[in-house]
Amino acid sequence: MADHDNPLLDDRDVDFLLYDVLHAERLVELSGFAEHGRETFDLLLKTARRLAREVLYPAFKPMDEAPPKLAQGRVTVHPSMHAIYPKLVELGLLNASRPAAAGGIDLPLTISTAALAYLMAANGSAAGFVFLTTGAAHLIEAFGDEALKATYMRPMYDGTWTGTMALTEPQAGSSLSDVKTTATPTAGGHYLIRGSKTFISGGDHDLTENIVNLTLARIDGAPPGIKGVSLFVVPRRRPEGAGLVDNDVQTAGVIHKIGWRGIPSVILSFGEAGGCHGFLVGEPHKGIGYMFQMMNEARILVGVSAAATASAAYHEAVGYARVRPQGRKVGARDPAAPQIPIIEHADVRRMLLRQKAIVEGALCLSLAASRYADLAAHAATPEARKRSALLLDLLTPVAKSFAAEKGFEANALSVQVHGGYGYSSEYLPEAWLRDQKLNTIHEGTTGIQSMDLLGRKAVAGGDAALATLLEEIAEAAGRARRAGVATTWIDAVTGAGAAVAGLTAELGGYAMSGDVEKMMLHSVDYLELFSVLVIGWQWLHQAAAAREQLAGEDRGLGDFYEGKLCAAQYWISTEIPRIPALAELCRSAEDSYARMKPAWF
Amino acid sequence: MADHDNPLLDDRDVDFLLYDVLHAERLVELSGFAEHGRETFDLLLKTARRLAREVLYPAFKPMDEAPPKLAQGRVTVHPSMHAIYPKLVELGLLNASRPAAAGGIDLPLTISTAALAYLMAANGSAAGFVFLTTGAAHLIEAFGDEALKATYMRPMYDGTWTGTMALTEPQAGSSLSDVKTTATPTAGGHYLIRGSKTFISGGDHDLTENIVNLTLARIDGAPPGIKGVSLFVVPRRRPEGAGLVDNDVQTAGVIHKIGWRGIPSVILSFGEAGGCHGFLVGEPHKGIGYMFQMMNEARILVGVSAAATASAAYHEAVGYARVRPQGRKVGARDPAAPQIPIIEHADVRRMLLRQKAIVEGALCLSLAASRYADLAAHAATPEARKRSALLLDLLTPVAKSFAAEKGFEANALSVQVHGGYGYSSEYLPEAWLRDQKLNTIHEGTTGIQSMDLLGRKAVAGGDAALATLLEEIAEAAGRARRAGVATTWIDAVTGAGAAVAGLTAELGGYAMSGDVEKMMLHSVDYLELFSVLVIGWQWLHQAAAAREQLAGEDRGLGDFYEGKLCAAQYWISTEIPRIPALAELCRSAEDSYARMKPAWF
Repeated sequence: MADHDNPLLDDRDVDFLLYDVLHAERLVELSGFAEHGRETFDLLLKTARRLAREVLYPAFKPMDEAPPKLAQGRVTVHPSMHAIYPKLVELGLLNASRPAAAGGIDLPLTISTAALAYLMAANGSAAGFVFLTTGAAHLIEAFGDEALKATYMRPMYDGTWTGTMALTEPQAGSSLSDVKTTATPTAGGHYLIRGSKTFISGGDHDLTENIVNLTLARIDGAPPGIKGVSLFVVPRRRPEGAGLVDNDVQTAGVIHKIGWRGIPSVILSFGEAGGCHGFLVGEPHKGIGYMFQMMNEARILVGVSAAATASAAYHEAVGYARVRPQGRKVGARDPAAPQIPIIEHADVRRMLLRQKAIVEGALCLSLAASRYADLAAHAATPEARKRSALLLDLLTPVAKSFAAEKGFEANALSVQVHGGYGYSSEYLPEAWLRDQKLNTIHEGTTGIQSMDLLGRKAVAGGDAALATLLEEIAEAAGRARRAGVATTWIDAVTGAGAAVAGLTAELGGYAMSGDVEKMMLHSVDYLELFSVLVIGWQWLHQAAAAREQLAGEDRGLGDFYEGKLCAAQYWISTEIPRIPALAELCRSAEDSYARMKPAWF
Repeated sequence: MADHDNPLLDDRDVDFLLYDVLHAERLVELSGFAEHGRETFDLLLKTARRLAREVLYPAFKPMDEAPPKLAQGRVTVHPSMHAIYPKLVELGLLNASRPAAAGGIDLPLTISTAALAYLMAANGSAAGFVFLTTGAAHLIEAFGDEALKATYMRPMYDGTWTGTMALTEPQAGSSLSDVKTTATPTAGGHYLIRGSKTFISGGDHDLTENIVNLTLARIDGAPPGIKGVSLFVVPRRRPEGAGLVDNDVQTAGVIHKIGWRGIPSVILSFGEAGGCHGFLVGEPHKGIGYMFQMMNEARILVGVSAAATASAAYHEAVGYARVRPQGRKVGARDPAAPQIPIIEHADVRRMLLRQKAIVEGALCLSLAASRYADLAAHAATPEARKRSALLLDLLTPVAKSFAAEKGFEANALSVQVHGGYGYSSEYLPEAWLRDQKLNTIHEGTTGIQSMDLLGRKAVAGGDAALATLLEEIAEAAGRARRAGVATTWIDAVTGAGAAVAGLTAELGGYAMSGDVEKMMLHSVDYLELFSVLVIGWQWLHQAAAAREQLAGEDRGLGDFYEGKLCAAQYWISTEIPRIPALAELCRSAEDSYARMKPAWF
C-alpha cells in the first residue's frame, strides 16, 4: 500500500466550491435557511469528514472483501457495518435537509450533499444505507397520508428502520411500464401485494428491525403501461398491535455484484404466502410520477457518488505519484542519477490533471445542482424558484451521467498511474473502479439520461431551459471577465454555449417536422457535448473564483489556486474543441447504427 | 446466464480478414512458406477453434474464480489447467511459426496469430502459458548458443518446460535501466544470479517439471543504465548429470491480480542461498536490445489478446441483446404490445456497432501486423523485407495500445449492454473487463507506447516509415475505389493520412529546433489520432473487400458484408472527424499539464 494518507476529498476544494465558487453562505439570507450560518455548515462538514475518514474508510476494503451473505432466508452484512450504522444515524444526514415537520433542520441540500460526498468517497456502500432510506422516506413525506408518515416516515428518518426503492423486475428492467407486481384491494384498506423485484439495494440486512420497501405495483384492473402503476409502502414487517409481524416479504436471492459489495442487493418476493400487505401512497395509478421525484433526487446523488468515488481514486493516484520513483526526465543522460517521482513525468501529470478536471468539475456541478434544488424550494420569488427548478431539471441527467461516464475513465486512470500495482487487489484503485461501474447503469442508464436530456429537457420544454442556462453561462463569463480570466477561455465557453443552443434548435426542428428518431439518433453524442459545455461552465466559475482569491488577501493557497487555473485551462483547451465534431454528428444524423440491422451483427 | 452460444471470435470474420482482406493464402507463394496451402491453414484454425470453444472456454470462469495458490513455497494452478496444458502443447502453436531448425513448420505468423486469438478469446490465462513460453524460447533461438538451444530452447518449444520474461523489479517498474539484479561470473562459465523480480507471469506453477526465466541482470562491474544490462537463462531447476537440480529460485509471493487469474504472476527471488546459476544469452550488456525482440513480438500479441478479449465480450453482448426483451420503439403508444429485444433500440445498436468497429478493426490490424512480420522475414526482395519491417515497427505501438485502450471501452460497453446483469459476477462481461485492464499496463504502458510511436517510430527515422504507411493507405484507397466504396469514405481516410503526415513533420520540426519536450507533450493525443487513422485504413480495406464479395459470386453472406460496410461507415464517419481537434492539441503544444506543478495538485 502507498505510504500516504488519502483525504478522499480535498477539504480546501470543498470549501472553495461551496464558498468561493457557489457562495453557499448566502443561502442563509433566504427565509427557509435563516436559522443557519456558516458555522453550522462547517460543523456538519467537520463531523462528516471525521466520520468518513476515521470510521467509514477503514472499513471499505474489509467490506469489499467479505460481501453480505444469505443464509436461512436472511441477509447478514459485514460486522463493521453494525458499528458504522449507529454513527451514520447520529450524524443526522438522514433528514437534516428536511423541514421540522419531518423532524429535520432545513439544512440546505448544498451542504448536506457536500457532507454526504465525504461518506460516499470513504465507503459508498455504507453511505448507501443512508441515502436510500432518505429517498424512500421523502416519498412518504411528499405523497403519503398522515398515518403513513407517523408509522413509516418517522422511524425511517430517525434511522430506526431503513428504506429501499423497489422498482425493478426481472422481466422489465428499465422499462417501468412493464411492472407486473400486483396489488389487490382488501376490505381492510390495505392491498395484498404479489410479485418479484430484483436489484433491490438494502432490500435485506440485519442492521435494523424493519425495512420499508417503496414498491411499484399494479392495482387489479389498472390500465396497462405506466398509467396503471401505483406506489406502495411494503414493509418487511408490519406494525400490528404493539409490535411488528412478518409481512410475507421473502429474500429470494442475493446479487453477486462486482462493486458496492458492502450493501446487499437482493431479489425480493412479495406475497408468496398471500400475506403481504401494501399501503397505497397517494393516489392510484400515479406511482411513476411519484417515483420520479425520488429518482431525480437519486440521480443527483449518483452524480455525487460518482464524483466522490473518482475523487478518492484521484487522491490515491496523486499520493502514489508523489512517492513512487521511476525513470528520469526526457533527455536525461545520466543513468546513475536517482530516479524521479513519477509525478515529474508529463504523461503522469496528464493523467492526474485529467482526473482532477473530471473530479472537481463533476463535484462542482453536483453542488451547483444541489444549490439549484435549494433555490427551487426556497428562493424569494416564484420566478426565481421556477428558474432554479428549470435549471435543476436540465442539469440532472448531465450531473448523473457525466460523473458516471467520465468518473469511470478517471478511475481507470488511477489504476493506470499505479501501473502493475494498480492491477493488484492489494491496492485500492481497482476497488473504486468496480464501484464506479454501477453509476452508468443504475437510476437510468447513460442512454436513458441522454434521451431525457435531449428529448425532454432541452427540446420538449421549448427553449426556456436552454435560454436560462445561457444566462447562467453569461453570468459566469461576466464574473470571469471581472476577475481577469483569459478572454480566450471565456470566449471558448460562451461560444460553445451559443453553438449548443443553435444545434438544439436544429435538432428540435427535426422533431417539429415529424422525425423524432432523426432528432434522437445521436442523443448520446448530444449528452456528451452538452456535458463538455456544462463542465466548461463550471470550470469557468472555478477559474474566476481562483483569480478572485489570488487577487484578494493572501490565504496562503497560491498553489491551490494555480492548480485550479491549470485544470480550467485543461478542460477549456482540450475538451471544448471536441464540441464541433460531435455537433456535426448530431446534425447530420449520421446513420450507421440506424441502418445496422440486427442480423448484420 | 444468457441462453445463447458465444462464438468468441466470428469464424466468418476471421476467414474474411485472413483471406478476403489480407489474402493470406498468397503467402504460400513465398519460398519460406511454400510447403503450406490454405488447407493446412484452415486445418490449424479448425483445431484451434474447437480447442478454444470446447476445452479452454468452459474453464475460463472456474479458473477466474479460483486463482493459483502459494503454499510451502510453490504455486499450484487450477486443476482444469492440468487437463488443458497437454492439449495446448499438442495443438503445436508453441513453435509452429518457427523454422525446422527450431522444430517448427514455418507456418506464417498471420495464421498462428489467428489461431492464438481463439485461445486468447476463450481463456487468456491458459493461452498465456503458450505465448510466454514461445517468446522466451524465441530469445534463446535468436541469441543463444547451441548449448542453450539444445538444453533449454527445445524442451520449451516442445512444451516440456515453460518460459517467462523476468524483467520487472519492484524498485524499477517500467524503467529497465534501473535493473539491480546482479550476475557474478564464475570459473565454471555460468553466473551467480542474485536479485528479485516481480509480476513474473507463469513464474511458478505445477504444470511442468521446470520453468525457464529469461532474466535481465547486471554483470558485476557493468556500466550503469541500459548499456550494462545482460540477458540470462535462469531456470527454476538446472540440468546436472542425468537430472534436474534445484537452482535456488524462490517464489517469494503471488500477486493478487484483478484479472488473468488463471495464470499466476509471482515475485521471484534469485540466489537467496547463493546457488542460483544463470547462463548468459548472447553478448554481455546487450540484454535490453535482445529483450526488445521479445517485447516487440509480445506487444503485437497484447494487441491480439486485447482484441480477442473485447471480441468475446462483444459477441456475448450481441447474443444477449438479441434475446433480452425490454421496452418498445420510440413513439410506440401501446403499452400492451410485447416488449422488443433490446437490439432494436438505436442506442443499444450504437454500443454494439462501436464494439464491432473496435474489435474487428483491432483484429484486422493485429493480423495485418503479423502479415508484415511474415513479409519482413520472407518477402522475395531485401527491399520488400525492409519495407515490411518498417511498417511492422511503426504499427506495433498502435496495434498494442489501440486494442488495449479501446478494447477496454468496448468491454465496458458489453457490461453496459447487459444492464444490471452486467454488474453481476454471474455474467461474464465483468470478467473480461477485468482481464482487459492489464493490456494498457503490461509490455509498456500506453504512455510508453505513445513515446515509442512519436519519438522513435514516426519522427526519429526520418519520414520513411510514415511515407510507407501513406503508400499503403493509397493502395487501400485504390482498392476501395475499384470496388466501388463511397468516395467520401476514401477521401476521409486519405485526407486524414495527409493531415497526420503534415502534423508529424511539424512536430519533428520542434525537435529539430531543440524542443523535444514540446514535440512529445501530446504524444498520447498523437497516438490517439494516429490510431484513428490506422483503424480507418483497416476499415477501408474491409469495406473494399466486402464490396468485392458483394459484387462477386453470392456466398450467402450478404448480411455479413452489409454489417462490415456499416461498421466501416461508423468508424470513418464518427472517428476520423475527431482527428483535427486532436492534431491542433499536438501542434499547439497546449501546456496545461506541462505547467502544472506537483504541488498544485
